Amino acid sequence: MKVLVVNGPNLNMLGKRDKNIYGNFSHEDLVKMIEDWGRKNDVEVEVFQSNHEGEILDRLHRLDFDGLVINPGAFTHYSYAIRDALEIVKVPKVEVHISNIHRREEFRRRSVTAEVCDGQISGLGVYGYLLALEYIKKKLEELT
Amino acid sequence: MKVLVVNGPNLNMLGKRDKNIYGNFSHEDLVKMIEDWGRKNDVEVEVFQSNHEGEILDRLHRLDFDGLVINPGAFTHYSYAIRDALEIVKVPKVEVHISNIHRREEFRRRSVTAEVCDGQISGLGVYGYLLALEYIKKKLEELT
Amino acid sequence: MKVLVVNGPNLNMLGKRDKNIYGNFSHEDLVKMIEDWGRKNDVEVEVFQSNHEGEILDRLHRLDFDGLVINPGAFTHYSYAIRDALEIVKVPKVEVHISNIHRREEFRRRSVTAEVCDGQISGLGVYGYLLALEYIKKKLEELT
Amino acid sequence: MKVLVVNGPNLNMLGKRDKNIYGNFSHEDLVKMIEDWGRKNDVEVEVFQSNHEGEILDRLHRLDFDGLVINPGAFTHYSYAIRDALEIVKVPKVEVHISNIHRREEFRRRSVTAEVCDGQISGLGVYGYLLALEYIKKKLEELT
Amino acid sequence: MKVLVVNGPNLNMLGKRDKNIYGNFSHEDLVKMIEDWGRKNDVEVEVFQSNHEGEILDRLHRLDFDGLVINPGAFTHYSYAIRDALEIVKVPKVEVHISNIHRREEFRRRSVTAEVCDGQISGLGVYGYLLALEYIKKKLEELT
Amino acid sequence: MKVLVVNGPNLNMLGKRDKNIYGNFSHEDLVKMIEDWGRKNDVEVEVFQSNHEGEILDRLHRLDFDGLVINPGAFTHYSYAIRDALEIVKVPKVEVHISNIHRREEFRRRSVTAEVCDGQISGLGVYGYLLALEYIKKKLEELT
Amino acid sequence: MKVLVVNGPNLNMLGKRDKNIYGNFSHEDLVKMIEDWGRKNDVEVEVFQSNHEGEILDRLHRLDFDGLVINPGAFTHYSYAIRDALEIVKVPKVEVHISNIHRREEFRRRSVTAEVCDGQISGLGVYGYLLALEYIKKKLEELT
Amino acid sequence: MKVLVVNGPNLNMLGKRDKNIYGNFSHEDLVKMIEDWGRKNDVEVEVFQSNHEGEILDRLHRLDFDGLVINPGAFTHYSYAIRDALEIVKVPKVEVHISNIHRREEFRRRSVTAEVCDGQISGLGVYGYLLALEYIKKKLEELT
Amino acid sequence: MKVLVVNGPNLNMLGKRDKNIYGNFSHEDLVKMIEDWGRKNDVEVEVFQSNHEGEILDRLHRLDFDGLVINPGAFTHYSYAIRDALEIVKVPKVEVHISNIHRREEFRRRSVTAEVCDGQISGLGVYGYLLALEYIKKKLEELT
Amino acid sequence: MKVLVVNGPNLNMLGKRDKNIYGNFSHEDLVKMIEDWGRKNDVEVEVFQSNHEGEILDRLHRLDFDGLVINPGAFTHYSYAIRDALEIVKVPKVEVHISNIHRREEFRRRSVTAEVCDGQISGLGVYGYLLALEYIKKKLEELT
Amino acid sequence: MKVLVVNGPNLNMLGKRDKNIYGNFSHEDLVKMIEDWGRKNDVEVEVFQSNHEGEILDRLHRLDFDGLVINPGAFTHYSYAIRDALEIVKVPKVEVHISNIHRREEFRRRSVTAEVCDGQISGLGVYGYLLALEYIKKKLEELT
Amino acid sequence: MKVLVVNGPNLNMLGKRDKNIYGNFSHEDLVKMIEDWGRKNDVEVEVFQSNHEGEILDRLHRLDFDGLVINPGAFTHYSYAIRDALEIVKVPKVEVHISNIHRREEFRRRSVTAEVCDGQISGLGVYGYLLALEYIKKKLEELT
Repeated sequence: MKVLVVNGPNLNMLGKRDKNIYGNFSHEDLVKMIEDWGRKNDVEVEVFQSNHEGEILDRLHRLDFDGLVINPGAFTHYSYAIRDALEIVKVPKVEVHISNIHRREEFRRRSVTAEVCDGQISGLGVYGYLLALEYIKKKLEELT
Repeated sequence: MKVLVVNGPNLNMLGKRDKNIYGNFSHEDLVKMIEDWGRKNDVEVEVFQSNHEGEILDRLHRLDFDGLVINPGAFTHYSYAIRDALEIVKVPKVEVHISNIHRREEFRRRSVTAEVCDGQISGLGVYGYLLALEYIKKKLEELT
Repeated sequence: MKVLVVNGPNLNMLGKRDKNIYGNFSHEDLVKMIEDWGRKNDVEVEVFQSNHEGEILDRLHRLDFDGLVINPGAFTHYSYAIRDALEIVKVPKVEVHISNIHRREEFRRRSVTAEVCDGQISGLGVYGYLLALEYIKKKLEELT
Repeated sequence: MKVLVVNGPNLNMLGKRDKNIYGNFSHEDLVKMIEDWGRKNDVEVEVFQSNHEGEILDRLHRLDFDGLVINPGAFTHYSYAIRDALEIVKVPKVEVHISNIHRREEFRRRSVTAEVCDGQISGLGVYGYLLALEYIKKKLEELT
Repeated sequence: MKVLVVNGPNLNMLGKRDKNIYGNFSHEDLVKMIEDWGRKNDVEVEVFQSNHEGEILDRLHRLDFDGLVINPGAFTHYSYAIRDALEIVKVPKVEVHISNIHRREEFRRRSVTAEVCDGQISGLGVYGYLLALEYIKKKLEELT
Repeated sequence: MKVLVVNGPNLNMLGKRDKNIYGNFSHEDLVKMIEDWGRKNDVEVEVFQSNHEGEILDRLHRLDFDGLVINPGAFTHYSYAIRDALEIVKVPKVEVHISNIHRREEFRRRSVTAEVCDGQISGLGVYGYLLALEYIKKKLEELT
Repeated sequence: MKVLVVNGPNLNMLGKRDKNIYGNFSHEDLVKMIEDWGRKNDVEVEVFQSNHEGEILDRLHRLDFDGLVINPGAFTHYSYAIRDALEIVKVPKVEVHISNIHRREEFRRRSVTAEVCDGQISGLGVYGYLLALEYIKKKLEELT
Repeated sequence: MKVLVVNGPNLNMLGKRDKNIYGNFSHEDLVKMIEDWGRKNDVEVEVFQSNHEGEILDRLHRLDFDGLVINPGAFTHYSYAIRDALEIVKVPKVEVHISNIHRREEFRRRSVTAEVCDGQISGLGVYGYLLALEYIKKKLEELT
Repeated sequence: MKVLVVNGPNLNMLGKRDKNIYGNFSHEDLVKMIEDWGRKNDVEVEVFQSNHEGEILDRLHRLDFDGLVINPGAFTHYSYAIRDALEIVKVPKVEVHISNIHRREEFRRRSVTAEVCDGQISGLGVYGYLLALEYIKKKLEELT
Repeated sequence: MKVLVVNGPNLNMLGKRDKNIYGNFSHEDLVKMIEDWGRKNDVEVEVFQSNHEGEILDRLHRLDFDGLVINPGAFTHYSYAIRDALEIVKVPKVEVHISNIHRREEFRRRSVTAEVCDGQISGLGVYGYLLALEYIKKKLEELT
Repeated sequence: MKVLVVNGPNLNMLGKRDKNIYGNFSHEDLVKMIEDWGRKNDVEVEVFQSNHEGEILDRLHRLDFDGLVINPGAFTHYSYAIRDALEIVKVPKVEVHISNIHRREEFRRRSVTAEVCDGQISGLGVYGYLLALEYIKKKLEELT
Repeated sequence: MKVLVVNGPNLNMLGKRDKNIYGNFSHEDLVKMIEDWGRKNDVEVEVFQSNHEGEILDRLHRLDFDGLVINPGAFTHYSYAIRDALEIVKVPKVEVHISNIHRREEFRRRSVTAEVCDGQISGLGVYGYLLALEYIKKKLEELT
């Protein structure tokens, strides 16, 4: 059982970016938190971060995972290419946003990717990743 | 530590409503699931369901809870009254939708209440309630 | 064979409201007209009027009728809650408007409930209720 | 007492067109049904079908009828010319649609002709024609 | 001479709600202020507050007042039902908002009820109620 | 020197149509008025009226005239086919409307044909035709 | 019998402005043309040009004319103040545009003033002023 | 304590303009009414009327007043220049409209100036000026 | 095997119309080109051109062809009647436009008919007809 | 004579993606089909697929081809960068879509790239590539 | 070589207006800064400030300058009259805004004047004027 | 003191692209011009060009510069990813466009990146880069 966690553009700068919104938890901290969860839950996890839309597509196309957590960052709002890639992925998948996308600029309200995921978690901080992982795990257990 | 779970209009009909979208899990099952979680986690929980917008406002105004999970049902899309009530509530609060609101009719995409909650979980089934409760619990523990 | 007729907000004021548009036929006259029809056609009819959205939901949820005629009044234009309740109701159902909703203010043109009914009759005065009842009766007879 | 029934474009193909929506009742069946109604009710009826907007205008301009039932078909959504012609016609008039225009493509929701009729019946199948005729008959009887 | 003052949803929480916008003047203070005005001006006043749209409709339908001041709260932005009820009320009537509805969220700018009142006062704090009462009083004096 | 005057749908009903807007001057009166103008000004005139979009296209395609006055009636608002035909016509051409199209329903404000004419005259009554003819005549004289 | 001709902003630069659209006929030529028409037709004419919205309002407010021709220039598209002034003016009045406002930038299509004039002439060059004057003269003659 | 009252374009024509909407109370009557109020309340008042946007800006820029009542007339709907000037003015200020701007043309609903005033009074006739003055007076008294 | 080619309004004027966009290839040339293709490919072809929407509907309703190529001309942008007729036609069908509809006026970008065809070819000149025919032929061969 | 065929994001997954829409023809099959066409027609062809917008730009910038067929995939709907690159390319060029972009989600209807190509073929399956190549070949032969 | 610098409404209040956005540099300071630049660069400069749209038009119409820098202030967003005047001015011209117009209210994003200038500088503070002057100077030197 | 200059997609083709708009100044010329400026002003400059959104993000994330000039090319209109990256960059930064983005296609008017820069220069040709550099230099000098 393997879960892929994809982080989109600028998420590598977590903790360096606007701290009012995201706090100073870094991307390395996030990776560690997810890997800890994996160990505790006996689930293989891989965190993949890229600022390149094309690399995210290439990664998704490998289809070597059983569940997917994705925070597409700004791509959420315009990357129909990632949307199409997500449609190809037929495993349980959850879109995660650290901040509440309904509370910020108008353009952040629109997600072109959410409708091809199982669902979306937003505004619950980095903790949202763990909740998404819990969901994936539960879903996969139901399927077996 | 007490968490209030509010369910809006038609959620009492859960399991009787369109089964393609919601499955046949009933509202009673939902209440039981939440109460079980409460017992296991040593958190007082109360599930309040109403089809009356005014009753939901009255309930929220009592301000006798430390955390809030709310599924406003169809009120999500137009009840600015509930939105205003949520703004008064200053505890951790999460909006939950059982189905993926981005996958259905256009009007379901717009939430007038999400921006005054901490965040939103949608599309993860009734399991979304438990994830929301986990978040509230964690948040309350951080505050103490 | 029982048909429920639901009248939404302000319809109790029929005949007291703007007479240019609705004439001075009262709600009591309307109830009588419908009950007369019921007797003549040997169909049990019940007229339920409420200004409370929640009460209309509660009434619909009882699901104790074989056909439904509904004039949601102003709720037509924004009550997605009633829309959701109508979706649960799986009997023949018709939306009725006394006045021609296409001839008045722009907002009256939009019905959020019509698409979950079999159809809609508007502008044919209180006579529209009888036509709706005729349709329901015919439909129910076809089903038996 | 004469009632004209006008059927617009493609209605001659009734029963040959998408059967999920319209069933396999043909235009000839429809004409027969209306003529039967005429005989039973002692009302002269004429069914006029044309795929030509101009012919419909020419027919309406003759003004040789006491009541009008019109299903403008696709012209409903853009023919301001028919709308203008209907404004000239000062007899009781009802717009009829066989299917529920609120349940199909977005463009079918907009009627440019409904606001110059007494009212509109939609979604009640071919039976909607008979209901419209009942209304016209009643209206004409009231006037005499 | 009797004037009814209607306060919509969440106004009971006045002084408990966001203090930057509304200050800490409570609903009880407001009632007292209005009753004082009534005594001084020899006008019978009644303050009616409800979070229930239906109750506001029921109250308005009694038509037992000569003037009306209404702060529909959030209902201002979507309750066509209250709008319809206001149309039935044929006495001098003024819509009041404590805060300046043009300075806050976009949705607060739209009032569906203002056009069926004589006029609107917004942004002048709770003092706006007294100005509205002054207007009603003057208007009623002119009529006698 | 020949000028074609084209009148679109429903203009044959002039004087029979809503008299508040158009008066009771008939289409025959209009034809006579234009022919009188022709005689006085020594210009051959032909008035062509049709309710059929296709016939108007066919007529325009003959290209046997030196100037064009066109009142497309309701086609003004949607007939891109007439618009395309007007583009082919390379003589001086003026669009005429009897009533002021800016004063009526919103849809009448949009003309899809005006931009392919030299200009537009609206709201000056049937006299607008004569002014258009004066313009055409002057323009043709300038060209010779 | 006196007719006022009002020319709005930048019309003093006629003939100096973009010659593709307006030719090189100057404002002085225009004044002369209009005065010639006045002499020939025995009508007192006054041409008033101003780049100042306020001066145009002041001029209109004097109400010392029997007919009005106005080319509001760019004010056509946004000056609700001129619109309001035109509403006060109760004499025959025509809006004139030298160029075809439907053929240029999108914003030129919208006239906020046309609906409070009798009608509008656009695209017929400076000759449009004479046609407008002819109309005014005819209208005034009808009234006497 | 000095209060400036600014009246925008066309308000000098009060009583000469559409009497259905504004009655026949003249601008001179309005000035007198305000001056009477000033005398009675011992407040220096100045009424400044201009049809010139620039003059209104110049007047506001003098900043020699302690309170401001402004009826920007048609400038309400487009003068961002007046809006900017109002932002500079840091005294209590109220926007007044004689008629109910929500009941007339759509464009009158939008105010670009209201959001930079304390609040807005509309639809209460010329009496609205006095209510605004009462508010200003009260506000100034609170500040001292 | 018979393929019908339908050409809509103004296409008879091909070569006479704006040559920058369409060149001077005439409709007769087009017919010949298609007939040549038919002979070479042993496919019966019929070219039907009409400026009358109704005639196009009548022609399509005969359903005596195995494949369809249609260039609806300006009807592309508004004829829901043709759209409905195309839905009835259950053979391979392609919409063709000679010019690139994305490069011209905004309104040409919207096709109401394309979604009920197999696909669309635009901007490839008259050669587009031959490509469409190739597709139809191939499709029909696959079916047999 | 060399023709470049560019395939955008996710097209490498052809045959693995939603089979209802695209069938199970793979990208390798597509390359082979195009190369076969090249051999038969004595035209050098190169198929370039990338999920990286930047790589597509780099490839186009080499300008080493005489004709271009491009299926931008999801980039069609938002990549103004590819649009700008296409503008630089001055050879015959055709946009191809395998599925009918007018039949799917609303966002697929908008192409930001089509207007800078000669034309567009959509909905004719993978066969659309061959038709595009036929067009390019013919166009290039005309130029020599 | 003479450069005109035009400052629109409220810019005379620079340094008195909202200091968060504009700082406390006054209009006199601005004039001095520009005159210093003129002396240093041997270019005649004139700074013209007015709150009157009409005066700005009158000033521009004199056409006695070789380059133009204009900060239209709030007129940027609605004065099509100034836009038309700028079109007449055929010298190098730059629009300047002190603050970043993309960072403030939505309405400030739209400039109706920028498209008839060479270009626009915004958000670079009063220094933007000097950069605009540098550009004008360079442009004029190139022309000689 | 180091300033980074970022050039987005297609700017490497400068001088090869549409010469009416951009002239034939090449990207190499641009780099040289900027480096010359650096030498003259004793400022370290680096010009970074990429057609890859991801590479631009990676470059910005290194945060090894004191000032930033960015011409995002077509990314200006949709890359929220670059917008987010610019928000992280806390040095003086200016967006530059060679052509006047207000004079071209509608979509070029919208910049999603400008609001997170200090300001924007557009339409002043390649000279705009030098003006931006002057601003950055001045700003940095002020800070030290």
